[in-house]
Amino acid sequence: MFEAAEVGHTLDKDTYEAKQEALRAKLIAMQSRLRKSDIPVIVVVAGDDHPGCDDVIQMLNQWLDPRFVQTNAYGPPGEEATQRPAFWRYWRDLPPRGTIGIFSQAWTAAVLADRIKGGDEAAFLRAVEHVERFEQAMADDGAVVIKFWLHLPKDLLQQRLKEAEEHPDREWRVHPGDLLVDENLANNLQAVETYLRRTSTGSAPWHVIESTDPHYRDVAVAELLLEAVTRRFPRDKAARARDKAAAAAAGEEPTTFEKLDPHTVLDLVDLNQSLNKKEYHQRLEELQDRLARASRAVYQARRSAVLLFEGWDAAGKGGTIRRLVQPMKPQLYRIVPVGAPTEDELAHHYLWRFWRHMPGAGHVVIFDRSWYGRVLVERVEGFATEDQWRRAYHEINDFEEQLVEHGYYVGKFWLHISRDEQLKRFKARESTPYKRFKLTDEDYRNREKWNDYEAAVAEMVARTSSSRIPWNLIAANDKRFARCEVLRIVCEGLESLL
Amino acid sequence: MFEAAEVGHTLDKDTYEAKQEALRAKLIAMQSRLRKSDIPVIVVVAGDDHPGCDDVIQMLNQWLDPRFVQTNAYGPPGEEATQRPAFWRYWRDLPPRGTIGIFSQAWTAAVLADRIKGGDEAAFLRAVEHVERFEQAMADDGAVVIKFWLHLPKDLLQQRLKEAEEHPDREWRVHPGDLLVDENLANNLQAVETYLRRTSTGSAPWHVIESTDPHYRDVAVAELLLEAVTRRFPRDKAARARDKAAAAAAGEEPTTFEKLDPHTVLDLVDLNQSLNKKEYHQRLEELQDRLARASRAVYQARRSAVLLFEGWDAAGKGGTIRRLVQPMKPQLYRIVPVGAPTEDELAHHYLWRFWRHMPGAGHVVIFDRSWYGRVLVERVEGFATEDQWRRAYHEINDFEEQLVEHGYYVGKFWLHISRDEQLKRFKARESTPYKRFKLTDEDYRNREKWNDYEAAVAEMVARTSSSRIPWNLIAANDKRFARCEVLRIVCEGLESLL
Repeated sequence: MFEAAEVGHTLDKDTYEAKQEALRAKLIAMQSRLRKSDIPVIVVVAGDDHPGCDDVIQMLNQWLDPRFVQTNAYGPPGEEATQRPAFWRYWRDLPPRGTIGIFSQAWTAAVLADRIKGGDEAAFLRAVEHVERFEQAMADDGAVVIKFWLHLPKDLLQQRLKEAEEHPDREWRVHPGDLLVDENLANNLQAVETYLRRTSTGSAPWHVIESTDPHYRDVAVAELLLEAVTRRFPRDKAARARDKAAAAAAGEEPTTFEKLDPHTVLDLVDLNQSLNKKEYHQRLEELQDRLARASRAVYQARRSAVLLFEGWDAAGKGGTIRRLVQPMKPQLYRIVPVGAPTEDELAHHYLWRFWRHMPGAGHVVIFDRSWYGRVLVERVEGFATEDQWRRAYHEINDFEEQLVEHGYYVGKFWLHISRDEQLKRFKARESTPYKRFKLTDEDYRNREKWNDYEAAVAEMVARTSSSRIPWNLIAANDKRFARCEVLRIVCEGLESLL
Repeated sequence: MFEAAEVGHTLDKDTYEAKQEALRAKLIAMQSRLRKSDIPVIVVVAGDDHPGCDDVIQMLNQWLDPRFVQTNAYGPPGEEATQRPAFWRYWRDLPPRGTIGIFSQAWTAAVLADRIKGGDEAAFLRAVEHVERFEQAMADDGAVVIKFWLHLPKDLLQQRLKEAEEHPDREWRVHPGDLLVDENLANNLQAVETYLRRTSTGSAPWHVIESTDPHYRDVAVAELLLEAVTRRFPRDKAARARDKAAAAAAGEEPTTFEKLDPHTVLDLVDLNQSLNKKEYHQRLEELQDRLARASRAVYQARRSAVLLFEGWDAAGKGGTIRRLVQPMKPQLYRIVPVGAPTEDELAHHYLWRFWRHMPGAGHVVIFDRSWYGRVLVERVEGFATEDQWRRAYHEINDFEEQLVEHGYYVGKFWLHISRDEQLKRFKARESTPYKRFKLTDEDYRNREKWNDYEAAVAEMVARTSSSRIPWNLIAANDKRFARCEVLRIVCEGLESLL
């Protein structure tokens, strides 16, 4: 869930200064329109980077007109608060229409802390339900509800928390940040993931922001806040045209969060990894033997697995799948190639066609492309509406959670190659007669949209990768390396079932 | 939750015959429009009246064109199904667009049975979440999702189940109907209530239908199904005008579910109950003594209560509240009269003004009118949009559940009088100089809308009364009886905190 916020996003000082100035002017202008509207704005700032949360709140108070902003931070509940239901404090502090209320940690930290300090799962699930309903009620009432989770990679987090510890004004209770570095990491992380997934809805989404570089972090938060509120104002065509013209005259690119830093989680994949022929054959043999044993044992134990492969065109999905199934008995697995939906499939919910193929006891089903088409090709090519692909993340998460709760192993693989490598492979296909049929004009057209696809992949990973059902991003510039890597992960996954 | 479906709704044979004929023609016409649309229709038939569910499904298959209806009933999961996640069967059986899928019991019975056969609460809450997401995904995808819970009063239910037992083809697993008559009634009922509340959403609502009279039940179900599907067709003004003209020419009233039977849960209140002066003074004194003791004990135990009073104009709320607080120390209670919202209150979510008044430890807060204004006066007078008052039921349920989870006693009272009694009291006010100020033209105007208000009260009770937080419908034609009844219930409520 956090991989996509460990990319090392930064903003250099000059860019930051320039953006900051423009942003502050826009934020003030936004607030003056907001004042005349009946929209309350609820900003939640939480996360594992606790010192960072304080800094962001500081920044918001400096950049915004403080007369119409109220910041609410919560110490240990006083007598008044403990005597009343937990949400009483938060209701009391809700911003009136036309203003902004910033909530520091608030109900997010409270619900997580209760769970991690030993509260039982049912109480936790009930509390999460109250949070969902609370935020939904606000959104239904016309509020902009926007939530930021500030994230630091683990080593940096440990360092920051140590620094913070040296200050005497420590927080009053277990803090999510502490949770993610302590020894119960796995359990705690799962509580955080469950919380963020369940409460990340279309009308009250979480934005997981990488907090490594304060410049990037501050601009990202301000940008997203500005976008979320501005989107709610009645659209005034003339005004937008004026803004655009003014920006163009000033030589500015219109800033948006998406363009803030073109780096994505895919940049973290080290595409230089490779195996020479000899290493490859040796490892492949070892891994295929291991897989043969594992798949037989899985069959005997009557456990099941779902594997799915996504990746760039020509990334080598087919070849990888072939090596994967070689050592498995044919009756133990099935490959499901996913193409354009049939008439029958179009007559149903898009997940229907995939549910049909769920494996029985002892079987492995391998999807060559999958339900993620909804948030990849269908998103980028416009086959799905924005509403459709946006809600697909939740639908997919719920679907996959059911598979894991039933006891399946779910392995998700994205085969990653560079743009140059893809071009090389396309050219090679053109000149190899028996491979030429694989290449169509469409492949070249898709290349044009590389950046759009990359943004879609990054968001997919951010929203559907979790510690229980992670995305495996596989370096596939070297096919040998990719095949062995996939086999290794599948072996581990199947062995985890035994 | 079920009071409103124990009213004794019936339909005489002639009305039934006439309605049936018209309905069947309309259902067939609806199906032929449906065929040309991209809407799948998902009908869930479940409930405690298990034999009734079968009858309703029979009826639907007879009244609808069976070529475009598929009925899905579920026996014990076979090998195929147990090897896969629970929802696999239901996904497999989803109706294609343009057709109707009827689901007998299905996931509803499965989730409830698991809970009641000893599944833990966390597993239950996770399952309910999957149900919510599943039904939401269908609705988001354009499906009409409509769910019927067929309910029988307990004695009748026992009798029907006995009859059914004599047939050899008993259901394969614990059935919700059995649950509601067995010895764990309270726990089981709470599971059913939790399930129905959580999964009754705007886009996939439950309709609790009284199943006492098969004629009423069948027509109600068919009517609601027809309305739900037809509402989704593009509105064709000309066609609607034609329909209306044709109906008028045939001397028909357009049938709608709302008009099917004007009886409501309020008709069950026996307005003849009364106390003579002597009885009254004696009981009042006893009850006030008891209340004095209970309220002191509650204060010492630092427990709290929220009481709220709704009712017809001139039903005697003020006088009842005065008798209620007489024996309580002034520092222990507060009365909050609820009028039109202030500017400050309008700048917030409508529940905000009520949250502010939640009592501290040891205190009792009494609301003279309450948050239910949203689904009563604001609904009937059009101050709230349909979306607003419809979602208020969920918001209120979640709010009150938080109060009870925190340990408050929540007492909800509707003071009921007859229309005639109200008129008598209005007249009396007119002729009593010191009471005249209480009467305005508006009171008479509200009388005109008696039926609309009564329908709103019935729906409010159906959607917000539960075994943990029931509505108390108080017979108030006799003020003495009403006052003693309220005092008795409040005493019991406070004593339950000790």
